[in-house]
Amino acid sequence: MKIIGYRDRVVVPVPKADGTDYREAAQKSTFDNHLKSITILQPDGPSFTVEGHTVRWANWEFHVAFDMRSGPIISLASIYDHNKDEYRRVLYRGFISELFVPYMDLTEEWYYRTFLDAGEYGFGQSAVPLQPLRDCPENAMFLDGYFTAQDGTPAKISNVFCLFERYAGDIMWRHTEAALPGDVRLPDVSLVLRMVSTVANYDYVIDWEFKQTGTIKVTAGLTGLLAVRGSIYTHKDQIMQEEYGTLLAENVLGPRHDHFISFHLDLDIDGEANSLVKAKLQRVRTTDGRSPRKSYWRVVNETAKRESDAKIHLGSGATEILVTNPNKRTKVGNDIGYRLIPRTVASRLLANDDYPQKRGAFSKYNVWVTPYNRSEKWAGGLFVDQSHGDDNLATWSLRDREIEKKDIVLWYTLGFHHVPCSEDFPIMPTLTNGFELKPTNFFDYNPMLKFKPPQQVRRPSNCTSSIKILPQ
Amino acid sequence: MKIIGYRDRVVVPVPKADGTDYREAAQKSTFDNHLKSITILQPDGPSFTVEGHTVRWANWEFHVAFDMRSGPIISLASIYDHNKDEYRRVLYRGFISELFVPYMDLTEEWYYRTFLDAGEYGFGQSAVPLQPLRDCPENAMFLDGYFTAQDGTPAKISNVFCLFERYAGDIMWRHTEAALPGDVRLPDVSLVLRMVSTVANYDYVIDWEFKQTGTIKVTAGLTGLLAVRGSIYTHKDQIMQEEYGTLLAENVLGPRHDHFISFHLDLDIDGEANSLVKAKLQRVRTTDGRSPRKSYWRVVNETAKRESDAKIHLGSGATEILVTNPNKRTKVGNDIGYRLIPRTVASRLLANDDYPQKRGAFSKYNVWVTPYNRSEKWAGGLFVDQSHGDDNLATWSLRDREIEKKDIVLWYTLGFHHVPCSEDFPIMPTLTNGFELKPTNFFDYNPMLKFKPPQQVRRPSNCTSSIKILPQ
Repeated sequence: MKIIGYRDRVVVPVPKADGTDYREAAQKSTFDNHLKSITILQPDGPSFTVEGHTVRWANWEFHVAFDMRSGPIISLASIYDHNKDEYRRVLYRGFISELFVPYMDLTEEWYYRTFLDAGEYGFGQSAVPLQPLRDCPENAMFLDGYFTAQDGTPAKISNVFCLFERYAGDIMWRHTEAALPGDVRLPDVSLVLRMVSTVANYDYVIDWEFKQTGTIKVTAGLTGLLAVRGSIYTHKDQIMQEEYGTLLAENVLGPRHDHFISFHLDLDIDGEANSLVKAKLQRVRTTDGRSPRKSYWRVVNETAKRESDAKIHLGSGATEILVTNPNKRTKVGNDIGYRLIPRTVASRLLANDDYPQKRGAFSKYNVWVTPYNRSEKWAGGLFVDQSHGDDNLATWSLRDREIEKKDIVLWYTLGFHHVPCSEDFPIMPTLTNGFELKPTNFFDYNPMLKFKPPQQVRRPSNCTSSIKILPQ
Repeated sequence: MKIIGYRDRVVVPVPKADGTDYREAAQKSTFDNHLKSITILQPDGPSFTVEGHTVRWANWEFHVAFDMRSGPIISLASIYDHNKDEYRRVLYRGFISELFVPYMDLTEEWYYRTFLDAGEYGFGQSAVPLQPLRDCPENAMFLDGYFTAQDGTPAKISNVFCLFERYAGDIMWRHTEAALPGDVRLPDVSLVLRMVSTVANYDYVIDWEFKQTGTIKVTAGLTGLLAVRGSIYTHKDQIMQEEYGTLLAENVLGPRHDHFISFHLDLDIDGEANSLVKAKLQRVRTTDGRSPRKSYWRVVNETAKRESDAKIHLGSGATEILVTNPNKRTKVGNDIGYRLIPRTVASRLLANDDYPQKRGAFSKYNVWVTPYNRSEKWAGGLFVDQSHGDDNLATWSLRDREIEKKDIVLWYTLGFHHVPCSEDFPIMPTLTNGFELKPTNFFDYNPMLKFKPPQQVRRPSNCTSSIKILPQ
């Protein structure tokens, strides 16, 4: 092989290296923020058990697997209902199905940078071994992951997951009543399963968090390095045309981009037959004299009958998204359900006919629902390299199948629009977004009402000096 | 005084008391979730200091005051920039200005229940003494609050605030580079100032959280008891008309309602002269052949010149809201700024001419900006009892004053639409929402780049048995 020619379209100065090395060892003057040590203390150890791949903690049990394409796969997640004395299924299987990261830079060297991180790179395969005390707190337990390497042999990623109990100082509930001075509260302790996947420059911190009140909370944190490009500019005032990004430092430009993460959520809310309900909060005018009020809002529930009914753009939050089990009801007759609560909603801005958007078409809606089909796992298609968008969520759902009272899959796309800023350089403080799946008329009443709080501890005063300080 | 008559419009059965007492002592069978003890350990104590009302921690310093109407008032919040070797102002003053809680029940006994919790009750005056280990973690310090009682004498609320360092096991940033095996990460330790205000049935948990990376994060947690009403119904199937709420238990109905919390945020981003910038992310079509791509998105910055330009409905997140200091720029020329990042956005649904909406008119937009005016503190007006909406944010801003390069106040309304569900009864697991103020081209680069991590600790192994277990 020999080089027979090359084209040097743009010549830009090499950016100064000064201040661009993010590593601790490279910092000439290291400042001290005077933070004293802080850690999570569980004097009697963690409260969860791991048997094989089954995790049991508090009222939850679930199976966790590692997949080279999607990373963690949570399955058979069920919550114990002490009132019914049984485990009730919530999530048959949940995992990251695809990530779509289109850059908004039209220059010749960048326009094609529109990545599908799971299908192209392997979101699990890009996972990094988690480092105790750095990536996960002191009370974490670590699990290894295995996958099939290119030559067919088993490959291992040590410490690919960590499991730890989180206590951020929050209150599960409380109340102070004037006439009843006694009040109740429980600490909001939850269980977190974490993986970090470093897909080239970006590091994704994925947390699956289980709360005792029944909520499953998923958080994606974005950190690592921005993909940057060289630039002729050293100051913003020199820029007279669209440069597709933010000038971060002299001769360093951070192009704008999106991150869309599609979650495949095969919910089985208390059984397989589920429906998607759009609970629309609608203003009603009451100027007919029936009330001194001139308006209020009501809830109009619409059950999605076919896939086309469940392609949803989420806006200002006036529609609640529920997955219900219409065959089961609470004691007083409400449909058993779980609610999807998005955090910050971001919707795709690319045009439908743009080639990257055809491939990452799952980002067209925030929510999709399909009937379960074992071949429909990867929102961007099974084979994504050079794909044309003919085998993906958008295409499958064109069949407009029936989804009412079926074994359905909820696809939620978590999005970030990223306009880089100077704080993101040379390394980016974690930016997070997420969603929750919250029991909504799943239990007959507050499921933690009759539970007693864990024992409280104070710092042992007689052994302060024996705390082991680890080398940095 | 004597009763000369009464009208008994509706007669409903008294709901069963069974299962409605939320207190721990009332639970006949108390279940154990088998959670082992968990706490935050700071073997060398907290890292913050409190001198008078000034709190200093890591790179932050701010003043905290207690106000009987709004609760905590954060002022003069500044962050140390080691690069410039100076404290730089972020927030001149921030506080909860008003809460608007309209119920959506048109019945005679309920239609008027549209509360302004700060102006009518005193959000600070309704604060409750925080209980160590229950309301705040072990490493918390407590502060008292004072206000003027009705008879003019000073009144005290003990432990009205707590201050604690939060470490939820999160990563401030990280990166693993294939060719550079060494990787860096800092634990995401932050400082939280908390108050809990119990306005009759609802308990609001308000957290002001300061992050070392420069972000101020505000979280409002809603817990306590739903306001419920008696009902003739024992099962949903009996309900044939609009009942304005969810049947939670036999004969107990939870009416639907909203919570809108208006934050008065007098930002002084690196000085007083600030502007509001709407950074609109807009799709651009590129079908003219200039690129193989058919679209991308760009950012169009619009600086609000007058108040009318800054009345903003937030939707799907395609507009970023920035407060900038146009007189100051980063080294490479970006305007110094902070960005408002809302979590879940909720917009009012009541009609403008509805009487409660006139009073709580601040909920009409998610964002407003006014020029600073010392008489404009309370978004619902100074005197809200029986107010008609003629002295409030909506009215003030009709003057359409200039707000460019002025000392401006950003008003953000945090909203919840609350459709009660059975899990909220008899006591409601905490429901949270919030927003962040994040440095965006405020620093020249990642402000924590050159800081070394705090010392790490492991659990002292030789004193496990001496952990003091407190009585429940």
